[in-house]
Amino acid sequence: MTENVGPIDSSAVPRYAGIATFARLPRIEDVPRADIAVVGVPFDSGVSFRPGARFGPSHVREASRLLRPYNPAQDVSPFAIAQVVDAGDIVANPFDLGEAVTDIERAATALGEKVQRIVTIGGDHTIALPLLRAVAAKHGPVAVLHFDAHLDTWDTYFGAPITHGTPFRRASEEGLIDLEASCHVGTRGPLYSKQDLEDDTRLGFSIVTSEYIEEHGVAAAIERVRNRIDDRPLYISIDIDVLDPAHAPGTGTPEAGGMTSRELLRMLRALGGHRIVGADVVEVAPAYDHAQVTGVAASHVVYELVTLLAAQVARE
Amino acid sequence: MTENVGPIDSSAVPRYAGIATFARLPRIEDVPRADIAVVGVPFDSGVSFRPGARFGPSHVREASRLLRPYNPAQDVSPFAIAQVVDAGDIVANPFDLGEAVTDIERAATALGEKVQRIVTIGGDHTIALPLLRAVAAKHGPVAVLHFDAHLDTWDTYFGAPITHGTPFRRASEEGLIDLEASCHVGTRGPLYSKQDLEDDTRLGFSIVTSEYIEEHGVAAAIERVRNRIDDRPLYISIDIDVLDPAHAPGTGTPEAGGMTSRELLRMLRALGGHRIVGADVVEVAPAYDHAQVTGVAASHVVYELVTLLAAQVARE
Amino acid sequence: MTENVGPIDSSAVPRYAGIATFARLPRIEDVPRADIAVVGVPFDSGVSFRPGARFGPSHVREASRLLRPYNPAQDVSPFAIAQVVDAGDIVANPFDLGEAVTDIERAATALGEKVQRIVTIGGDHTIALPLLRAVAAKHGPVAVLHFDAHLDTWDTYFGAPITHGTPFRRASEEGLIDLEASCHVGTRGPLYSKQDLEDDTRLGFSIVTSEYIEEHGVAAAIERVRNRIDDRPLYISIDIDVLDPAHAPGTGTPEAGGMTSRELLRMLRALGGHRIVGADVVEVAPAYDHAQVTGVAASHVVYELVTLLAAQVARE
Amino acid sequence: MTENVGPIDSSAVPRYAGIATFARLPRIEDVPRADIAVVGVPFDSGVSFRPGARFGPSHVREASRLLRPYNPAQDVSPFAIAQVVDAGDIVANPFDLGEAVTDIERAATALGEKVQRIVTIGGDHTIALPLLRAVAAKHGPVAVLHFDAHLDTWDTYFGAPITHGTPFRRASEEGLIDLEASCHVGTRGPLYSKQDLEDDTRLGFSIVTSEYIEEHGVAAAIERVRNRIDDRPLYISIDIDVLDPAHAPGTGTPEAGGMTSRELLRMLRALGGHRIVGADVVEVAPAYDHAQVTGVAASHVVYELVTLLAAQVARE
Amino acid sequence: MTENVGPIDSSAVPRYAGIATFARLPRIEDVPRADIAVVGVPFDSGVSFRPGARFGPSHVREASRLLRPYNPAQDVSPFAIAQVVDAGDIVANPFDLGEAVTDIERAATALGEKVQRIVTIGGDHTIALPLLRAVAAKHGPVAVLHFDAHLDTWDTYFGAPITHGTPFRRASEEGLIDLEASCHVGTRGPLYSKQDLEDDTRLGFSIVTSEYIEEHGVAAAIERVRNRIDDRPLYISIDIDVLDPAHAPGTGTPEAGGMTSRELLRMLRALGGHRIVGADVVEVAPAYDHAQVTGVAASHVVYELVTLLAAQVARE
Amino acid sequence: MTENVGPIDSSAVPRYAGIATFARLPRIEDVPRADIAVVGVPFDSGVSFRPGARFGPSHVREASRLLRPYNPAQDVSPFAIAQVVDAGDIVANPFDLGEAVTDIERAATALGEKVQRIVTIGGDHTIALPLLRAVAAKHGPVAVLHFDAHLDTWDTYFGAPITHGTPFRRASEEGLIDLEASCHVGTRGPLYSKQDLEDDTRLGFSIVTSEYIEEHGVAAAIERVRNRIDDRPLYISIDIDVLDPAHAPGTGTPEAGGMTSRELLRMLRALGGHRIVGADVVEVAPAYDHAQVTGVAASHVVYELVTLLAAQVARE
Repeated sequence: MTENVGPIDSSAVPRYAGIATFARLPRIEDVPRADIAVVGVPFDSGVSFRPGARFGPSHVREASRLLRPYNPAQDVSPFAIAQVVDAGDIVANPFDLGEAVTDIERAATALGEKVQRIVTIGGDHTIALPLLRAVAAKHGPVAVLHFDAHLDTWDTYFGAPITHGTPFRRASEEGLIDLEASCHVGTRGPLYSKQDLEDDTRLGFSIVTSEYIEEHGVAAAIERVRNRIDDRPLYISIDIDVLDPAHAPGTGTPEAGGMTSRELLRMLRALGGHRIVGADVVEVAPAYDHAQVTGVAASHVVYELVTLLAAQVARE
Repeated sequence: MTENVGPIDSSAVPRYAGIATFARLPRIEDVPRADIAVVGVPFDSGVSFRPGARFGPSHVREASRLLRPYNPAQDVSPFAIAQVVDAGDIVANPFDLGEAVTDIERAATALGEKVQRIVTIGGDHTIALPLLRAVAAKHGPVAVLHFDAHLDTWDTYFGAPITHGTPFRRASEEGLIDLEASCHVGTRGPLYSKQDLEDDTRLGFSIVTSEYIEEHGVAAAIERVRNRIDDRPLYISIDIDVLDPAHAPGTGTPEAGGMTSRELLRMLRALGGHRIVGADVVEVAPAYDHAQVTGVAASHVVYELVTLLAAQVARE
Repeated sequence: MTENVGPIDSSAVPRYAGIATFARLPRIEDVPRADIAVVGVPFDSGVSFRPGARFGPSHVREASRLLRPYNPAQDVSPFAIAQVVDAGDIVANPFDLGEAVTDIERAATALGEKVQRIVTIGGDHTIALPLLRAVAAKHGPVAVLHFDAHLDTWDTYFGAPITHGTPFRRASEEGLIDLEASCHVGTRGPLYSKQDLEDDTRLGFSIVTSEYIEEHGVAAAIERVRNRIDDRPLYISIDIDVLDPAHAPGTGTPEAGGMTSRELLRMLRALGGHRIVGADVVEVAPAYDHAQVTGVAASHVVYELVTLLAAQVARE
Repeated sequence: MTENVGPIDSSAVPRYAGIATFARLPRIEDVPRADIAVVGVPFDSGVSFRPGARFGPSHVREASRLLRPYNPAQDVSPFAIAQVVDAGDIVANPFDLGEAVTDIERAATALGEKVQRIVTIGGDHTIALPLLRAVAAKHGPVAVLHFDAHLDTWDTYFGAPITHGTPFRRASEEGLIDLEASCHVGTRGPLYSKQDLEDDTRLGFSIVTSEYIEEHGVAAAIERVRNRIDDRPLYISIDIDVLDPAHAPGTGTPEAGGMTSRELLRMLRALGGHRIVGADVVEVAPAYDHAQVTGVAASHVVYELVTLLAAQVARE
Repeated sequence: MTENVGPIDSSAVPRYAGIATFARLPRIEDVPRADIAVVGVPFDSGVSFRPGARFGPSHVREASRLLRPYNPAQDVSPFAIAQVVDAGDIVANPFDLGEAVTDIERAATALGEKVQRIVTIGGDHTIALPLLRAVAAKHGPVAVLHFDAHLDTWDTYFGAPITHGTPFRRASEEGLIDLEASCHVGTRGPLYSKQDLEDDTRLGFSIVTSEYIEEHGVAAAIERVRNRIDDRPLYISIDIDVLDPAHAPGTGTPEAGGMTSRELLRMLRALGGHRIVGADVVEVAPAYDHAQVTGVAASHVVYELVTLLAAQVARE
Repeated sequence: MTENVGPIDSSAVPRYAGIATFARLPRIEDVPRADIAVVGVPFDSGVSFRPGARFGPSHVREASRLLRPYNPAQDVSPFAIAQVVDAGDIVANPFDLGEAVTDIERAATALGEKVQRIVTIGGDHTIALPLLRAVAAKHGPVAVLHFDAHLDTWDTYFGAPITHGTPFRRASEEGLIDLEASCHVGTRGPLYSKQDLEDDTRLGFSIVTSEYIEEHGVAAAIERVRNRIDDRPLYISIDIDVLDPAHAPGTGTPEAGGMTSRELLRMLRALGGHRIVGADVVEVAPAYDHAQVTGVAASHVVYELVTLLAAQVARE
């Protein structure tokens, strides 16, 4: 068996040198095959407040220069046990939401034929819909574990059925998600009405709010989440605004009272053993970031997801 | 009974459009009556270190564009069950501290005749004195629940008896506060001398320090606070620097080791049932803010206060 | 004749107090009639690079708090000789470019029926097309004086015929502009090909490049511009990126080597006597601004435009 | 004759090391005598818009670490031919404008007894009044050469006769300035009314506007200024907002269309030969600065003033 | 016994006035003797990613202006019970790592002859090696309590044996540290390989990771630490990146998932009673800081260390 | 003849998508041959004040995403008439100045064997020495046209002969530069002594100061420069701090009173016809940049240099 190609050696090429791929990994074109791909979707035309997540992929890549190859928290060397690559960016028409969603689904499907496991960096949360379509086409309805300050199960906005506030409603309506196993984590802040919560339940989600975590702690939250998703195929969708604005200022619809990055990383690490079929990290809006605080958090989140997938590769 | 006028409908007018009133609520001039008013006091001439809180009200209003009408944490739709308005800004002479304090007291009293419940956005903490004068004139001595990194019971500074470091000493001396029921929460950082603490006790305050919260947790802090204030008429004064600088960089006298915004929101939500007669949120200094992190935190704090008051309206 | 209602008196209400209308002028709802309206179009879905101009109108309004009522450079007191108002924001669907363009045209036409002279604050440059449609419907083809780093006469982009790079091509094709009298000022930076310039000429524009101004000076540029527009009805469209990034960092497609704000203001003041039928100031993207540098420049530009229109009101 | 003590040797102690005195010069306590003193007045309670100039002196000192000892533009080594010192900061009561003005006058007078030539770093422009009082007490009425975006000859504001908008009106009324020889340079932006200009003339000032410089050039401006001040004792007062916001974002009342720092430095260098009796550089508000752009400009301006004074010392 | 000279009285000289020494304490030259010195080492040539810590000492000093003389969390008035001074900066050659390390060791040794207890402000972590050499020369091998996101026991980097990633490996090899009593706290994020951990153990460290603190809480962490260091002479080395980037954006190699400043301060306060022989706070890189968030945290950390040492002085 | 491979088509892949090579050009590995290479040297260990230029190459690449393929100011389509590539970054040891200089010379020489014309993005100005060595080895002594605020002909600093303040002294001493044809442009600000200027002349430079440009204009400066360099082989070295801090805040040793980016671009365009044998653009320090103002300026400067070289390719 040939050895996997890892990141550029930082003792030969300093971390600030060279072109930024995710974690300085090889580009997909540069290796013969890949187990796991990190891909960007620079798209933010579905945003209702602060735009800018179109610059998310390049920002997270720049912030990922510091990632090293061994993950002690999971005791896994992801780039050694799996071939991980940077698959570049999926192109989506910024001027036509409908066409963009089609573009993304098609490209994600095509990439999925080449690489079994994909972690996507957004872009705004709109992209979760076409990504889920591509995943569900392969795996059937999936448990969605959704970290976010918001439910994202709202209905139309300005008459648009598909925006960054609606992906999980559409996904539920389209039968893409497992109604018994999906879950929001970290929601908080005001809603439009109590009806939002009722709709959300009907659409297949239970909720572990940020308030719940504050009162009961992360361990309790982990248990609820793991019980909920059980052994279903799992899609993890992480809106970086699940973090408190202190930990993720660079995002479009910040809400006070969120999770710390330490809590989020812990929750992710607790998912070892679950069968992950896809994941995304979205809503990093660099124009509002400072000193890469948000970018570093997002790059670590992607790294934990890649590590989970690599451990899965090793297990399979 | 006529229906209350709520915020501008965000599905008709995007949240980034239109002039920023608090939470996009109607201005006081635009509705016939109001139950609750949010009012600004753009004043910072009582500041001893970084000035700039004069821009606090406009900053918090801009940051409040994202607030939606249903508060799931309290299960209350504040703008539906009460008429909430933005009463604009109280004008205070920036060049004469004494006159400014008089201006503010007079204006707060006048507004209090029109609207029973007021949440004030500062401005620096100096404004708590005239606000307490207006409140005590109506309700007698009140329990003051004071969230702050600092005691604000210092005496004169540069010979000035009224500054942002002294409102609660003056208020205590003037008999405005209930000496058995007042409390600081979140204080931390160095003081001038141990005498500061002795004076503070004599002036009527018990203290739940930030260190106490770190060691004993928020639930214990809530219990201490609720026992202390009991059933007295309650005035809540929140210096945004009670939050750690990570959560509120945009303030004038930051101290490391503070509360998270999640903890502060939880403590406020625990006050449902207490009889609140007034509240303020002060010391937001936008020139030091980034990506509205402080502004968003402050706007959520105001929102929780408004929700508590709205629930009170509904109960009465 | 009744006196015009001017800005809020800054000796009674400090400039940092109160809700920010443009120059603290009355809202259109608050006065019986108006000669000149400043209106916002918070829309940026036509942007090809950095988005964020949707926050332009509120940012320019906040930055306009310092504007005083007498313009010594033009020796005009615009708010005294004309009733100037803030007409709020025109709502445009952020998720559907075509619909948004229709929305804006309709709203601009409706506003134009109430107020003869309008200065619009964008928003991205896409909005110039519906604004020109509204203006041309009233005045026929107009001379367009276009300050910009870019030509904005490109054709489709990602298949979209209407974006912020195409308004003047579309306008020319639709017969909205006077082919003998239109002019770009301040263009610079790379193009796609020489064909861009040939197309541009055919579409009715002559060009005073930024390089021309550097070599020949502003006086020469003014003369060329004034000769070109002559006595035609004039629409002035100002992309804030005509300024150098030093003077306008807060914009979406910055190009080095631009004009200073002093030069731009001088050129605008030289247009007294021309018959202005409309104007816009676009592409202020606040997330990239610092200390309101761009906002202040834009607010002064709007102020000069309003002054020109007020002088016109007085002349008529 | 003993040699003057110059700045700390940067080839022995790097420029980023050690405590920041102006240009790393000795403190006044550390040398037996001084010809020229740079002194700070950290005071901003006279500000009508953005406060923060109280941090001006420490900011300008930090930004002055790069200044080297030979000024090639004037061909003078100021620290060699004169003993230049940092005299620290003058303390002024932040809570009482009247007392502060008295404090500053007294301290400036006392310092003036020890050191013949003083350059003051503000602080807001209020401080020019007590500084002029101290200077005029010694030299009689002086020609004031005033670089500023604003006239600063306004009358009361909120009933306060002495603020940062009024120093030169008060100074003129008190007979401190030479009515035939004073001059504003760089004013621009809107005024309250035409009356402002008439008052200003009566108070003893002629005006070289920023527009004049744009149209006629710096050489013409220099000639006008030099003719105006002629051979009178000269006080130079420089509000950093005379620079365009691109060159000085860190200030309290920015106006578009200002001077470049290159133009300002040139004008100052042209004053060699005039008899300077004092100078100030005010209104640096660091909270609005970026990368010390404003601080560097201000430190260079102070350096040119010190060089002019040192040349004067050498001539005398 | 003469009284200790404390900080400048803030009721006579405002905190924003005057030159910034640490906590506005006297300089070492200004008092006859000192018990505790705070000294800077502005040096960052050992940095592998973001440089800039050379500006750390001046930044922390500026951010320390708010520190007051009584520490209520430890119930100690450090500046009253011990003479604390600012000893300025140690000069180190920025162009020669080896020479710089020698410079620092020599200067630290010399300072240690004058003052028994020293807290050093970096500078990058390279400086811990010469500081430990100076300490161990006096006290023999010491327990190192090392707060950091990283192990800093890596070997050569680009062939350089001494960089900011290697001080504790070199120190261990040189016999400077107590192999039974040293401990890292707060490490997290990816490593190069599992071997890093094995080497680290061999070099004498146990590890309390950030994940451990998240799961088991600060109290458990404190117990582990105190048991480990026991009664050995203790050197405390604090890389500010032990804090989460939310709490310390201004640093060179940020890792998500770190400690809060409240947790760090609590851990430090728990060390009362241990015998501290030296301490440093390093890796503050101001160019990446915002609103002094990192600077304030670091200044409070230094303050707690000084308080611990002062209490020690009082005990001895 | 095969066609050159140009930048990624921005109508197919948006400019914010994909990995950032300079101007989105192909990497050197991706094309069979190249006429012109843009290469980075991320190195800043020679810096005496603010470090951070090691991040310059990646920053300029990100800021170059907007560059389009036709340069109207020179009427050249550089990427069509020459094969231009991004050659990635040259690796240099950050911990050993001497070794780094050797590394850079060797790599530049190797690259020069593959590609005839190279534009280098720094990195600090130290790198000009090894670059000149590589160039002079091929072309003999060259005329150096040096745009900079500083002379960079200083001697040792902290005993180090090679730093960012000394490259042109060393180059002159080594016989790398043409003593009759070299020239500084844009120098300004204080020097150490008059001797600096005398040394500089002896080392082969004439000087067109920033003051000269202010007084005599750019056209005069161009004439002086062109006369000086005449027909010698020309190396152009551009320290971005030749621009005023308003135009280039993101640099390490800013000096007020610099050139505008428009002036610099004009001067470069005037060099068409001269025989350019190499060029660099250095000292972009992104941590001090804002909204890519400096990055955009630098990317345009590189673009003009590439255009000049492409025109040369076409001529040859």
